[in-house]
Amino acid sequence: MVGLDPHLDLLPEEFTAARDATLPREERAQALADFCWELIDVCAGRVAVVKPQSAFFEVLGADGVAAWETVVTQAHEAGLLVLGDLKRGDIKSTAAAYASAYLDGAESNDANALCDAITVNPYLGDDSVEPFLEVCRRTGKGMYVLVRTSNPGGGTIQMHGTPPLCHAVADAVARWGEDLVGECGFSSVGAVVGATYSGELRDFRARMPQTPFLVPGMGAQGASAADTVDAFEPGGIRGAIINSSRGVAFAYRSPEHAGKAWKDAARDALDAMISEVTAALGART
Amino acid sequence: MVGLDPHLDLLPEEFTAARDATLPREERAQALADFCWELIDVCAGRVAVVKPQSAFFEVLGADGVAAWETVVTQAHEAGLLVLGDLKRGDIKSTAAAYASAYLDGAESNDANALCDAITVNPYLGDDSVEPFLEVCRRTGKGMYVLVRTSNPGGGTIQMHGTPPLCHAVADAVARWGEDLVGECGFSSVGAVVGATYSGELRDFRARMPQTPFLVPGMGAQGASAADTVDAFEPGGIRGAIINSSRGVAFAYRSPEHAGKAWKDAARDALDAMISEVTAALGART
Repeated sequence: MVGLDPHLDLLPEEFTAARDATLPREERAQALADFCWELIDVCAGRVAVVKPQSAFFEVLGADGVAAWETVVTQAHEAGLLVLGDLKRGDIKSTAAAYASAYLDGAESNDANALCDAITVNPYLGDDSVEPFLEVCRRTGKGMYVLVRTSNPGGGTIQMHGTPPLCHAVADAVARWGEDLVGECGFSSVGAVVGATYSGELRDFRARMPQTPFLVPGMGAQGASAADTVDAFEPGGIRGAIINSSRGVAFAYRSPEHAGKAWKDAARDALDAMISEVTAALGART
Repeated sequence: MVGLDPHLDLLPEEFTAARDATLPREERAQALADFCWELIDVCAGRVAVVKPQSAFFEVLGADGVAAWETVVTQAHEAGLLVLGDLKRGDIKSTAAAYASAYLDGAESNDANALCDAITVNPYLGDDSVEPFLEVCRRTGKGMYVLVRTSNPGGGTIQMHGTPPLCHAVADAVARWGEDLVGECGFSSVGAVVGATYSGELRDFRARMPQTPFLVPGMGAQGASAADTVDAFEPGGIRGAIINSSRGVAFAYRSPEHAGKAWKDAARDALDAMISEVTAALGART
């Protein structure tokens, strides 16, 4: 999976209109969408899923959100699944509105502009997760609950207590997803488990045997392909999607890709990542 | 404080265009904004702050977010402060984009459409909160961190461990806000602490003596005015904002206000709430 994180400050030369505050916001949002479209072109046929990050669209307000809708639609048209990185979480009636906005939207949004799955923040507890589960049950869509995130401070909250909170959340995720296990043996309810704590991945996999994992942290955040393999089913190649965001989109900024056009750098970085993960999976004993 | 939660299914008769899926989305979003404008008219001069809930705008996509910007601007023009109920939280670079989108936006948004404070979800830990703190330091704006929420399942995560997680989060909030205490003696870093656990409010107040509290749960969620008094400074009337959302906006649906126009019902419910909180504060020994 590739993250579509159109970070204003990191965009290649051709798209700097996006960060030019003297331009109309609509024009800036168009540059954001243009960049994502090129990145989708890099991804199509190479990966199964893209993960647009809502914050980088919201930063341009309503025009940015219109660009988000364009990007989600274009990714679908390119044959990609879309995992919306939204990390929403709220009390029940509000969570239902978020689920409707991004997954269901029967009454409000063009189906192509909706996501196939979204990320969900569990801090408000089980009744806040229920509206998302309800939509997953009814529509076949999916959700990935934050369990153990890849950032350096992730432990502040997630490692609280003995046993740590993230273990309790992992057990809850397995439970929430129990009645949503498909023929493939995996649930529609997934977990976000960072690869930056590779020692923990095997334990999380054992706690959530039927839970698909979304694994951030490879590339810019420092994890290697070998760090990700324990996220997959034991001995198999299913059960995990490995994400790289900045490591692909902004590969052109790395010395390793110096002199390349940004899109060539992105393509090369993505091909390298795919090879590395494939090799690491093959090297498992 | 009054929550602006334009829940599609609960809107009064005049605004049902908002939930009519046969209408263009822009027209539906306009009905949403119209309802909020009338509610702002009820609030102006009665309360200090309104709290729009993002989910109920996002449900109408980019058009809903445009309505959000209109509503925030109109609330400011009516002399109200705006606390954006967004509950965002993400890794550092992403959190910085959210902080820019809703509080700072130096380069992207009309200043009147930005919030004075927003709610923040702490699940991703201290480095995820830092970009919001940075904007508060630089701009004088504020943030309210979710500590103990008012929903029935809030304890699933927040009461994990011994001592419970929400105590650790409370201590972190006090620490995060230490260098942001103003002349009034309160910090720009607040805490969301539900009134539905009134027994806990006194303890939270002691743990976070310089932290302003945002207290949801009164009205529709079952807490009384008396349940909220321990959120204020001991013996004083500062340090807490008490919120009612559905209890004001949708008072017309309650038997108590049967036969009234929705706006009269909202005004009466708000006046009653203000009287009750004032009386409860006065009755403290």
